[in-house]
Amino acid sequence: MVATSLSPLAPAGFPDLPAIPGVKLHTVTLGIRYKGRPDVLLAELEPGTQVAGVFTTSTTASAAVRWGREALKGGTGRAFFVNAGNSVAFTGKAGEKFVADKVEAAAKALGCNKTEIFTASTGVIGEPTTANRITDALPDLLANDAGWLDAAKAIMTTDTFPKGASATTTIHGAKVTIAGFAKGSGMIEPNMATMLGFIFTDAAVPHAVLQSLLADCTNRSFNAITVDSDTSTSDTVLLAATGKAGNAAVTGIDDPALTGFKTALEDVMRDLAHQVVRDGEGASKFITVNVTGAISEAEAKITAKAIANSPLVKTAIAGEDANWGRIVMAVGKCGVQADPNKLTVSIGGIVLAKNGERVADYDEAPVAAHIKGQYIDIDVDLGFGDGTATVWTCDLTHGYISINADYRS
Amino acid sequence: MVATSLSPLAPAGFPDLPAIPGVKLHTVTLGIRYKGRPDVLLAELEPGTQVAGVFTTSTTASAAVRWGREALKGGTGRAFFVNAGNSVAFTGKAGEKFVADKVEAAAKALGCNKTEIFTASTGVIGEPTTANRITDALPDLLANDAGWLDAAKAIMTTDTFPKGASATTTIHGAKVTIAGFAKGSGMIEPNMATMLGFIFTDAAVPHAVLQSLLADCTNRSFNAITVDSDTSTSDTVLLAATGKAGNAAVTGIDDPALTGFKTALEDVMRDLAHQVVRDGEGASKFITVNVTGAISEAEAKITAKAIANSPLVKTAIAGEDANWGRIVMAVGKCGVQADPNKLTVSIGGIVLAKNGERVADYDEAPVAAHIKGQYIDIDVDLGFGDGTATVWTCDLTHGYISINADYRS
Repeated sequence: MVATSLSPLAPAGFPDLPAIPGVKLHTVTLGIRYKGRPDVLLAELEPGTQVAGVFTTSTTASAAVRWGREALKGGTGRAFFVNAGNSVAFTGKAGEKFVADKVEAAAKALGCNKTEIFTASTGVIGEPTTANRITDALPDLLANDAGWLDAAKAIMTTDTFPKGASATTTIHGAKVTIAGFAKGSGMIEPNMATMLGFIFTDAAVPHAVLQSLLADCTNRSFNAITVDSDTSTSDTVLLAATGKAGNAAVTGIDDPALTGFKTALEDVMRDLAHQVVRDGEGASKFITVNVTGAISEAEAKITAKAIANSPLVKTAIAGEDANWGRIVMAVGKCGVQADPNKLTVSIGGIVLAKNGERVADYDEAPVAAHIKGQYIDIDVDLGFGDGTATVWTCDLTHGYISINADYRS
Repeated sequence: MVATSLSPLAPAGFPDLPAIPGVKLHTVTLGIRYKGRPDVLLAELEPGTQVAGVFTTSTTASAAVRWGREALKGGTGRAFFVNAGNSVAFTGKAGEKFVADKVEAAAKALGCNKTEIFTASTGVIGEPTTANRITDALPDLLANDAGWLDAAKAIMTTDTFPKGASATTTIHGAKVTIAGFAKGSGMIEPNMATMLGFIFTDAAVPHAVLQSLLADCTNRSFNAITVDSDTSTSDTVLLAATGKAGNAAVTGIDDPALTGFKTALEDVMRDLAHQVVRDGEGASKFITVNVTGAISEAEAKITAKAIANSPLVKTAIAGEDANWGRIVMAVGKCGVQADPNKLTVSIGGIVLAKNGERVADYDEAPVAAHIKGQYIDIDVDLGFGDGTATVWTCDLTHGYISINADYRS
């Protein structure tokens, strides 16, 4: 395992997150793989808390993910029970027992149904282990109330900083609060969720509505980032609504009373997703790829992902080289409807190429200046329709190679 | 541009290639971008030479590729006219004029139709230029007969060694010879062809049959390799059959007389494709990914490509880490029909994981020994059907980052 220093794109510090009535955080330090910080988390939820979740689409998903999909059918949850250091993915019956043992122990301790316990595990794939150390520590864990910072630290692996975000809004005039945390740094091209994200609100929102909101916001947050195009077997984002805010009932996903909540939720999720990119393994630049003019939103996203995942685009930016030809290449390879003569490519808001060639008066100097910064904007207009998408990624540097040629994740 | 040292996977030397009756090679050294070696090639073909070609599927294909697709309709060719240092891709009217000027000058010099001149250009994308220096040098070029080695060198860019291969076989008892060369090192996930490949034979094979043979062999050679998942705008493979071998006529693609020729052609093309992988930017290991048990050949290839393109798999191998969990991850992310409980994963012929978990008596030592070698074999059986595919790739190292963060390609 390499020692990783703080990402140069890290925020100034962990944000000051408000308490969410109905949520109690607990952590414990077992040193299973990571030393000197908590590595097990249990987020305890008030009875009746509505839960929504999105999980990896991987066909080799972990036992924890498969359990989560089942448990979600009940719609309510009493705990999110997470451990870092071993994902226990692809460990057959051992992995199933690991999850079952965690679930059974937590359900017993909290006096609830097993389907109200959601679990997640993150770390190396394929190493069988038992849950004994974790379940034995459950009394200590429940006795140790923790803050957001410790909770966010407890789920980290190769992350170089803990990731948190919050927002407040109103529903039917009642103030509601949203706060959450996430982890993720490598094996990041979430396809339903990112590595791990946990979001809490005191809003009263029924499960079905909460699930729709989460899925929708995921598409423009965790599902719109990529570090290395590799989709984890453990991706999980869970959203808990305790109802303690006391807002009047909402009628459904289209209830105008939810407008502010939806925006606030998306803000929190996008903030967390951006923090995952900022902590992308080896990242030195935060890249925003904005695609417009596609024949559909889906094709816009395919194009943005093709640019964001192109090793040649990512290494050019790492080398501070405004090599826009590689952007054209990435558009061309991804199979969407495109025509060189309709394509417009901009970097840092400066149009470099349009109508099938470089602009006549192209001056590389301002583009070169932009690309020396930490925040790189790539805009591509395909010139066909109204489809748009934004995807966020980071550059591809020696740091990524160092981390992944040595670290077993 | 970084100085690139010889790939550790380079063959011992350039092979001794036989002459192909009906083919004359010419090169000239213009120093357009690369110094100290030829950078323009014209392969002159006997009148009546049948030509087949496969080109990139990129929607931002270069003007040379677009011209090649048109010219191919004629079925015959008198010259392959290639320059290295600038792909003249995405340069609008300037690119079209560049190709038209080359074609017109060569057709005039050789006294043939313009549609008998195939062109290719390789190098940086998006930098407009004129063909003047190249067309002015045409008399010198045609006066300078060159050997295979100079021809192979004339088309290189970031390649660290020239790539050639040959084979002999018979058609209807007549001895026929195949020889060719290729270039490619980065921006390699060909999708119809690789960067550039030129193959010649003295066999008498009509255009339509030749085209079918080329397309079929391409699927198991140039279209079965990847360095970095990035598809070039200039990929072109051309195959010329001069007919000088004097073999009796073949009746069609299924003519049994072509069996040996088909095998020999595929051998030459696979050899050249492997040399492209061996010269993959920064490569230190040659990786063979063999997928069996897929529900179709197409799904087998998708799976093999997902493994071969996974940055996490490629960096693990660079780090000589038998991190097979990343192989499971890559299978899971690619959307093919898969089930952890049916999956078998082997490295170096040693089964590591099956029935949804690591094998009970797993001993990492022999796998670790295999992975320290230069040739890595990954075998994955999906356990569903008869679909199989083999894909070749290289590892992902610091060298790739160094080359691509600095070199404008």
